[in-house]
Amino acid sequence: MVWTAHILSLFPEMFPGPLGLSLAGRGLAEKAWDLTVRDIRDFAIGKHRSVDDSPFGGGAGMVMRPDVVGPAIDAALAASKDVTRVIYFSPRGRVMDQGFVRELADGPGAVMICGRFEGVDQRVLETRNVEEVSLGDFILSGGEVAALALLDAVVRLLPGVTGNRESLEEESFADGLLEYPHYTRPSVWEGRAVPEVLLSGHHEKIKEWRTRQSEELTKERRRDLWDRRKRNF
Amino acid sequence: MVWTAHILSLFPEMFPGPLGLSLAGRGLAEKAWDLTVRDIRDFAIGKHRSVDDSPFGGGAGMVMRPDVVGPAIDAALAASKDVTRVIYFSPRGRVMDQGFVRELADGPGAVMICGRFEGVDQRVLETRNVEEVSLGDFILSGGEVAALALLDAVVRLLPGVTGNRESLEEESFADGLLEYPHYTRPSVWEGRAVPEVLLSGHHEKIKEWRTRQSEELTKERRRDLWDRRKRNF
Repeated sequence: MVWTAHILSLFPEMFPGPLGLSLAGRGLAEKAWDLTVRDIRDFAIGKHRSVDDSPFGGGAGMVMRPDVVGPAIDAALAASKDVTRVIYFSPRGRVMDQGFVRELADGPGAVMICGRFEGVDQRVLETRNVEEVSLGDFILSGGEVAALALLDAVVRLLPGVTGNRESLEEESFADGLLEYPHYTRPSVWEGRAVPEVLLSGHHEKIKEWRTRQSEELTKERRRDLWDRRKRNF
Repeated sequence: MVWTAHILSLFPEMFPGPLGLSLAGRGLAEKAWDLTVRDIRDFAIGKHRSVDDSPFGGGAGMVMRPDVVGPAIDAALAASKDVTRVIYFSPRGRVMDQGFVRELADGPGAVMICGRFEGVDQRVLETRNVEEVSLGDFILSGGEVAALALLDAVVRLLPGVTGNRESLEEESFADGLLEYPHYTRPSVWEGRAVPEVLLSGHHEKIKEWRTRQSEELTKERRRDLWDRRKRNF
C-alpha cells in the first residue's frame, strides 16, 4: 500500500511539476508514492459547464460551487478506499508545520482540494469534514503551489524516497531549534576561514559548538520557537 | 522596467513549472514579469565539476560550496542591474508573510538561491548579504518549491497580472483577519441553505455579518493574529 495523493484542481497540468524531478520524481517513478490528479472541470454542471458562480451577498470574485466540488471529493474518496482525509488549502486553515507533515506521511495519504478564485462554498467544507490547511500567512493565486509544497515535504519522509535517514533526523525542527551554520571546502574562502573548532576533530567540542550556535540563532531569530521549546523541556 | 526574478537552482527545469500556467503564466508571456533561471552547476569547479562537499566538523549530507554559489550570485546580480536583494530559502530564515510579499512586489525583483542538500556554506550568506527566508516550519527537499510559492504570491500583486484589484484588496490578511465563509449557488444544497442574511440584499447587515464571522473565526483559529490585531488598533 503506497502513500497516495489525490489532487483536485482546475489546473491538473501543474502536477507533478517540480515533483516529477529529483528524489520525489524518482520516488514517483518507482511507486514509492502515488499521485492522481483530477480536473475539477470534469464535475462541471449545466450547459455552460460552470464550476463557479458569484458569491451570495455580493462582493468581488467567484466562489466554487458546492454541487461541483462536493461530487469531486466524493469521487476521489471512492477511488482510493484507504484515504479518508480531505485537505483544502486556505489561508483560514491550520498553519502547516513539520508535525502536521509527519502525521500526514504516517497515514495512507489524502485528497487535496486546490481552490481558485475566492474559494469553495462553505457547505462543502462542512459536509465533507474538510481540514483547512494554510501554507502560511500570505495569499497564493490558488491551492496548487501549497499542494506542491505539502507533497514535497511529505514525500521526502516516505520510506524509499530519501536515501539518508540520518540526514532526515538531524535536521531543523527535530529538536525545536534552527540549524547551526554549515561550512565546507575550501577552508579559507575570500579571506574567511572556517571556525577553527570544526577542523579540530574533537567531536564533543564540535557538538557543543553546534548546539550553542543553534540555540543562539533560535533565540535571536525565532523567539516563538525558543519560548515553546523552553515550555516543553 | 519589469519585476525580475533571477533563480539559482540545481533543478532549473522546475521553473516556471506551475507559474507557466494561469494568470502568472499569461503575465510571463506578456512580460508583466520576468524570469531568468540559471543552473548552479554552470558554476561548478574542478575536474569533477562539483557543487558540494562534506561538511567541516562531520555530519550527514553535503554542503554547497562557497566558491560555487558565491560566483553564481555575483553573475545573477551583474546580469540584472536594478536587482540588489538576494534571497536564500531556509528554515532558519524570516518566515514569509503577506507584508514581506508586498514589500518584495513593490521593488524591482530579487535573486533567489534554491539550496539542496544540507544547505549553503555560511560564508556565502555573510559576504553576499543574503536574506534568509523561510516558507514555514517544515522541511522541503530544496528551495525550489519555496521559490515557486513566493513567486506565485508576488506575481499576482504585480500590475497587469491579476485583473480584479478589488478582489486583491478584500482578501485575507488585508485587515489582519481571516476571511468570512463564502457561499454561491445553489441556495439550498443537500438540504443546507445559505445563511439568510446573504440573500437579504441588505448591504449593511451583510457587511456586519461577514465582519463578525471573520472576527469569530480569527479568534477561534488564530489567537496569534487576533492578539496582534488588538495590539495594532
